[in-house]
Amino acid sequence: MTTFAEVSRIDQVEPGRFTADVHPEWTIGGKPNGGYLLAMLGRAAVEVAGRPDPVAVSAHYLRSPDPGPVEIEAEVRRSGRSASQVRATLIQDGTPRVDALLMMSDLGTADADVAWSRLSPDDDITPLEDCERFVGIMDQLAIYLDPASAGFTTGHPSGRGELRGWLGLPGDEAFDTVSLLLAVDAFPPASFDISFTGWVPTVELTAYLRARPAPGPLRVQVRAELISHGRVDETCRVWDSAGTLVAQATQLAGIRFP
Amino acid sequence: MTTFAEVSRIDQVEPGRFTADVHPEWTIGGKPNGGYLLAMLGRAAVEVAGRPDPVAVSAHYLRSPDPGPVEIEAEVRRSGRSASQVRATLIQDGTPRVDALLMMSDLGTADADVAWSRLSPDDDITPLEDCERFVGIMDQLAIYLDPASAGFTTGHPSGRGELRGWLGLPGDEAFDTVSLLLAVDAFPPASFDISFTGWVPTVELTAYLRARPAPGPLRVQVRAELISHGRVDETCRVWDSAGTLVAQATQLAGIRFP
Repeated sequence: MTTFAEVSRIDQVEPGRFTADVHPEWTIGGKPNGGYLLAMLGRAAVEVAGRPDPVAVSAHYLRSPDPGPVEIEAEVRRSGRSASQVRATLIQDGTPRVDALLMMSDLGTADADVAWSRLSPDDDITPLEDCERFVGIMDQLAIYLDPASAGFTTGHPSGRGELRGWLGLPGDEAFDTVSLLLAVDAFPPASFDISFTGWVPTVELTAYLRARPAPGPLRVQVRAELISHGRVDETCRVWDSAGTLVAQATQLAGIRFP
Repeated sequence: MTTFAEVSRIDQVEPGRFTADVHPEWTIGGKPNGGYLLAMLGRAAVEVAGRPDPVAVSAHYLRSPDPGPVEIEAEVRRSGRSASQVRATLIQDGTPRVDALLMMSDLGTADADVAWSRLSPDDDITPLEDCERFVGIMDQLAIYLDPASAGFTTGHPSGRGELRGWLGLPGDEAFDTVSLLLAVDAFPPASFDISFTGWVPTVELTAYLRARPAPGPLRVQVRAELISHGRVDETCRVWDSAGTLVAQATQLAGIRFP
């Protein structure tokens, strides 16, 4: 078993330059998961900024890298009192593959510091023990789907465009704000609950990390809103085991539909 | 009266380098509106990519520029069959102020090409003629608030964290996909419907442009989900006069709350 910490490891070769290795098992149809690549960029940003937590991360996916060696370049664009901004690129064979902008800060420990929230912890998600393990993509991840949104696995999508369930890392590794970047892109596409198409490649992904997650599995909800011009949007909400909303994300992806 | 086309105009000085002028009236407390700056970056991306429509745009706001001259640098990172990716920066006094990543394409005309949609046109928004003109920020814009979400203007926010209403440009200039980048950041902050704080500066803004808008005023909904660690998120949905969802956006902003 390879842990997420291992497969997303980066090594600094000089200030602002890193090498990493895209693991062949963390792919879908041979293409590395977008959240996995973003977590590598997140690790590079932690290093160059000297701040532990990505807070707002935007990535544009130019060309998918193949499994194998990649390089990361990361540069601090501004360093302020409580946050820094970083611009980073994941490169393979001299060609940029993912461009990202990352705002880095320190979210502190334990206290989620919620001043106001629209959402109460999403108690509507079925308890993990009553969910079904989903396999088929990135089986290293423990993805458990709420039965109400697992219809697509047996050819019966609900048509609502929403999947929900639970997520864990291999070996019960604890999530942090960097691995939350994987979590927001780990579920099957919400559009599978409309139509079980071929793969839905991410072209843009933005994530806001709102608190460090408590240990334990995450509750995840992904939701599509509109399919048009061959593209689908998807929002993602992630709550930790204590019920705190720890990540919000949105992505735009390509889709062949119907 | 200055039109939006005028105040967001850019001039190319050499390939990939542009000058522009931030208009002092398109500011809030002396700081230019984030969507206004993003539209300038959008215009530069149109030029360098040779494609008419921003489709996915992510911006990180590093330091606010002052009104006056700015420079824009824009570089094509990938040019594909149907889309190009651009990296652009707005600069003042030699210092980066806004970093952006833009995916450019051609959304075609007229046909919104909707294959599936969660949202029906948002008929819940009160007709424009029954809304109240909101003044106080960027009075060039015609912002009309639904009475149900205008409570904050008289000291009675609803507490729901949601504003809705209508938006028009000065002189009834028609919106296009570039000026939609202004539209997604033109409304007062959704958090004003929770607490009428001081200004809420955007740190990250991501917009998806889903179709070219039909002529006429836009319907806008902004909505906050979580205030924590001194930051608030806000989602924005924009429908054109034909009821098509033309833009979706999310932003993270700083807030002093309560």
